[in-house]
Amino acid sequence: MDLIFATRNRHKFEEVREMASVYGIKLKMYRGPREEIQSDKLEEIAKHSAIVACTALKRPCFAEDAGLFVKALHGFPGPYSSYAFKTIGNDGLLKLMAGEGNRGAEFRSAIAYCEPGSRPVVFSGNVRGYIASARRGSGGFGFDPIFIPIGGDGRTFAEMSIDEKNKFSHRAKAFEKFLKWYIQRKKA
Amino acid sequence: MDLIFATRNRHKFEEVREMASVYGIKLKMYRGPREEIQSDKLEEIAKHSAIVACTALKRPCFAEDAGLFVKALHGFPGPYSSYAFKTIGNDGLLKLMAGEGNRGAEFRSAIAYCEPGSRPVVFSGNVRGYIASARRGSGGFGFDPIFIPIGGDGRTFAEMSIDEKNKFSHRAKAFEKFLKWYIQRKKA
Repeated sequence: MDLIFATRNRHKFEEVREMASVYGIKLKMYRGPREEIQSDKLEEIAKHSAIVACTALKRPCFAEDAGLFVKALHGFPGPYSSYAFKTIGNDGLLKLMAGEGNRGAEFRSAIAYCEPGSRPVVFSGNVRGYIASARRGSGGFGFDPIFIPIGGDGRTFAEMSIDEKNKFSHRAKAFEKFLKWYIQRKKA
Repeated sequence: MDLIFATRNRHKFEEVREMASVYGIKLKMYRGPREEIQSDKLEEIAKHSAIVACTALKRPCFAEDAGLFVKALHGFPGPYSSYAFKTIGNDGLLKLMAGEGNRGAEFRSAIAYCEPGSRPVVFSGNVRGYIASARRGSGGFGFDPIFIPIGGDGRTFAEMSIDEKNKFSHRAKAFEKFLKWYIQRKKA
């Protein structure tokens, strides 16, 4: 069984590919036209991306949008995490957090699945944690080197293997919900 | 002669209203549905907003998108200036610039004008300057209190009246181009 993930991010693809294979699903990557709406809501962005990809492909597919929401920074960088990462990066975020007592943060993910002629269905996941005092680890991508999930052993996402990160991650949670719904629906 | 500015930002509206009146144009504000595409390009965002508003209104109108691009921060916050302002604000940007030797920055504006059934026409403006060491002034909006335009007397945008700001501003430059084109076209 094939399933198309509309993304230009190889890291995201690798993270969920393994999870899909457990269910006998072969994931394919589709690097479609990049057109995202500008919204404060990940769900809206994911839905829009899924519709754009589905319209271009004329086949069922899903898209994902994620962001890091830092409490002391009022939700920054949030839905604009990708641009913030490309410009100020982990070091910029650490600089913004200098002297900040509250280091609480949350990664959120929204996955939108779309079939031609239908409205997209959305699945969400989140993981709470805190911003590390310095970058650690070389795995993952984006802000992973400075995010420590609650419930872990103090390592950042970038210090974990994909399997370890998936035990906590926002994306894995959203994808798990989606997969269960998808499998159930195929059976019905 | 009436002209519709599709914006939810009262400050932007006030800045260009006076300029339009000099040409005998009465500007009207249209607070339409907020739907922006997520793009690194102001022109694309302005075009999209103009099309959305024009489709909803079924009348000619224009939209504008602007951003502050800081050199040392690789163009941050750029097209996401509004969200960055709402979350980390001027103080956050100053924190990011702490110890930064190169304080060069640029405000950019893109105005897109759209008529029903036609493709939008875009006009751009920019102003170079630098990031102040501290917030100064209470006028303007957004990052105006920390932006000092080149060619001025060292005051920030927020220390200027609308008329004074309009002598330098990215938005005034883009709007001037648009107005001249618009008037010329009406005459033809």
